[in-house]
Amino acid sequence: MPIPPRNETSTASPSGISTITVDLDDRSYPIVINSGQTNATDPSGFATHFREALGDCTHAIIVQDTAIAASAGNAVADALGTDDTFGTDDTQGTAGQGNDDLRLSVIDVASGEPSKSTDRIAQLWNEMLDTAADRRSVVIAVGGGVIGDLAGFAAATFTRGLRLVQVPTTLLAMVDSSVGGKTGINLPGGKNLVGSFWQPHLVWIDTDFLKTLPEREYVSGLAEVIKYGVIEDAEFFDYLESNITAILDRAPEPTRHAIARSCESKARVVADDERETTGRRAILNYGHTFAHAIESTAGYGAFLHGEAVSIGMQMAAELSVRLGRCPAELLTRQTALLDAAGLPLRWKDADVEKMIAVMARDKKVAHGKLRFVLPDRIGNVELVGDVPADLVSAAIEACR
Amino acid sequence: MPIPPRNETSTASPSGISTITVDLDDRSYPIVINSGQTNATDPSGFATHFREALGDCTHAIIVQDTAIAASAGNAVADALGTDDTFGTDDTQGTAGQGNDDLRLSVIDVASGEPSKSTDRIAQLWNEMLDTAADRRSVVIAVGGGVIGDLAGFAAATFTRGLRLVQVPTTLLAMVDSSVGGKTGINLPGGKNLVGSFWQPHLVWIDTDFLKTLPEREYVSGLAEVIKYGVIEDAEFFDYLESNITAILDRAPEPTRHAIARSCESKARVVADDERETTGRRAILNYGHTFAHAIESTAGYGAFLHGEAVSIGMQMAAELSVRLGRCPAELLTRQTALLDAAGLPLRWKDADVEKMIAVMARDKKVAHGKLRFVLPDRIGNVELVGDVPADLVSAAIEACR
Ligand SMILES: NC(=O)c1ccc[n+]([C@@H]2O[C@H](COP(=O)([O-])OP(=O)(O)OC[C@H]3O[C@@H](n4cnc5c(N)ncnc54)[C@H](O)[C@@H]3O)[C@@H](O)[C@H]2O)c1
Ligand SMILES: NC(=O)c1ccc[n+]([C@@H]2O[C@H](COP(=O)([O-])OP(=O)(O)OC[C@H]3O[C@@H](n4cnc5c(N)ncnc54)[C@H](O)[C@@H]3O)[C@@H](O)[C@H]2O)c1
Ligand SMILES: [Zn+2]
Ligand SMILES: [Zn+2]
Repeated sequence: MPIPPRNETSTASPSGISTITVDLDDRSYPIVINSGQTNATDPSGFATHFREALGDCTHAIIVQDTAIAASAGNAVADALGTDDTFGTDDTQGTAGQGNDDLRLSVIDVASGEPSKSTDRIAQLWNEMLDTAADRRSVVIAVGGGVIGDLAGFAAATFTRGLRLVQVPTTLLAMVDSSVGGKTGINLPGGKNLVGSFWQPHLVWIDTDFLKTLPEREYVSGLAEVIKYGVIEDAEFFDYLESNITAILDRAPEPTRHAIARSCESKARVVADDERETTGRRAILNYGHTFAHAIESTAGYGAFLHGEAVSIGMQMAAELSVRLGRCPAELLTRQTALLDAAGLPLRWKDADVEKMIAVMARDKKVAHGKLRFVLPDRIGNVELVGDVPADLVSAAIEACR
Repeated sequence: MPIPPRNETSTASPSGISTITVDLDDRSYPIVINSGQTNATDPSGFATHFREALGDCTHAIIVQDTAIAASAGNAVADALGTDDTFGTDDTQGTAGQGNDDLRLSVIDVASGEPSKSTDRIAQLWNEMLDTAADRRSVVIAVGGGVIGDLAGFAAATFTRGLRLVQVPTTLLAMVDSSVGGKTGINLPGGKNLVGSFWQPHLVWIDTDFLKTLPEREYVSGLAEVIKYGVIEDAEFFDYLESNITAILDRAPEPTRHAIARSCESKARVVADDERETTGRRAILNYGHTFAHAIESTAGYGAFLHGEAVSIGMQMAAELSVRLGRCPAELLTRQTALLDAAGLPLRWKDADVEKMIAVMARDKKVAHGKLRFVLPDRIGNVELVGDVPADLVSAAIEACR
């Protein structure tokens, strides 16, 4: 499939705001990347973009992580205008931007993965009904991937589908989970087993929200950023090598650029394979087969997801080198960049046999074929099947 | 939108099997109507149609109403072939029709509306995981509308979407709920508030399953059948007038014909308005605004749904006559046919004020406009707004 030239879909304004369009026919939507424009009263603010994307919306439900209620959550509510006439949990909005008829409701969700549960979604559906939501209501998910996935699934299913706005507040959510339309919850037996493909109408990324994000969470998100460079954007990989320090400092311009390029990558892949049917979307799983085995054998929570992905990308590159599929230089550069980002490169307690057992179980679930996404050069990966188990072991060993 | 000529989409074979195609581009699917062919070993049987529609399926999960487990549920399982090697709850199938590699799992669901709950769907998701379902598994819903809606929603959401086969066993499910792709569950605060649009790959309607259906359920389903005649198929209304006795006797040929014509009606409307966005699908709600007010003020369960729809259609026709939108003869013919079918025509305890209050509340939920679907002649209805409340009262009064 032809890959559109870089930046074709991205437009930058002098204020530093840029917009990326995710190209999905009648489900296309803009990702607007900015620094500190959420509450802006000029036309670059959230309210303006919200009105453009959502048109006649008269009721919005902010579903927010309690951890960011006082920061990002309030900023979004303020942008849309709140009189607090009806108290904090059901506020009647009078937007400075002319959203006179917008009624705002706010639902708090506890931080953390356990909120992506069948119990919490049932409660959320009932809370949405309590706000007198109807089919024209809009859900605004404000938080990390947990909130985006949970509120996104609620939006997909309440009255068989409400419009959705993603306002990601973690780096991982900005570059990954808020883009692409996957929503869902966990079952006790496994992660993300229940959900819907449900595209948002708008993704609003304000890098100012990152200011409060703990360092470890921020660094973890960088693993996915670097992943995009390896899988399909060599020029971006170069950029990251040159600018990793400024990005680690969360300097607005390079941070926005890193997020925008990541979103462009993901948008391209998703536009080619919206519902994971053509296979293209699989390249996003670079490092992830190993990462899942790491997360699963280490016990969920021991590593942050991006940390496991970082080690997993190292294992995948080691495997690719061993298969003679890529030059050792690729591994060298990837190692250096992940290291510079402060990401872990190895897991000294890795249990090779247990990890392979997990991957073999995943294999059964995926009907045959133990497959890995492996790089042949920076900027390109391929799906490779039937990899000898001893090389997989060796690749894991190499990262202990 | 142009309405295809009758029967264009329907093909009948000498064995009495007919197939209707629901025309939704790449989501098109066949509805196969037959009598007693579920377990047939000839190529007209369920297994053949299943294989045609589902291709490479290697794992099927039958989700069945306990009430029909021994009849329809077993027939479907037998058709696909079961060795019972792994017990009744996880049977390894070896189909007589060559489905050698089809693994069958069976999940029982208690009869009745309470199964359409957040608790039951959570349990169902977990039970599906216990069957080792993966993204290529197929869900077969065997039961009435409750099972179809619940299992359909589970199929829509498990691993973000499994293929679905509907095997309806009530008349209402055969002519209404199994066709059109609406799936969902209830919340304590209201019916069908959570769900997905999720089209099946096959609807298999075996009228033999109706043999055990209680008379009151069967008659209730006839209300929706008669509805199709009024809203968009005058010729079918004539047919029903002439054949209602044979249909009440559940004679196979006229029963199949009544179901096929009903499915054709619904398929036409759904093809014009798959996701309730163009407004066309609203005509299916003929009689339903009143019916919901009846069900709600009488307390859910006092009337079967079709009984409330019958009275609701009478109220709607009374209203249409009062508005001068249709001749009194329409009301006369509708009254006679509903009466001949054994359906109730009036509700002596109807509380006009309470019913209007419910409809006004629904109005709020629907954002303005108290609208009714009203007939102008047999075979055509229109959506009519801003109806004077006193005429609505009078129409209700007329049916007490
Ligand atoms: N839908 C997808 O395509 C997709 C892709 C990748 C990951 N995911 C999912 O995303 C989830 C992980 O996302 P995540 O890493 O964002 O986790 P998260 O939502 O749990 O956020 C991580 C932590 O940061 C806190 N937090 C969020 N924003 C903050 C801020 N601005 N300041 C301070 N603290 C803040 C949260 O309270 C939480 O404690 C997982 O459930 C994963 O399955 C989904
Ligand atoms: N999805 C849609 O488009 C749609 C449309 C209309 C109604 N519905 C839903 O359908 C449900 C009502 O459907 P229903 O009337 O089929 O109810 P149901 O599924 O509860 O079935 C009615 C009763 O008949 C029993 N039964 C089913 N098949 C039988 C058989 N062959 N022999 C003997 N008993 C049998 C059931 O156990 C139940 O007790 C409601 O929940 C309604 O919301 C959905
Ligand atoms: Zn990831
Ligand atoms: Zn109905």
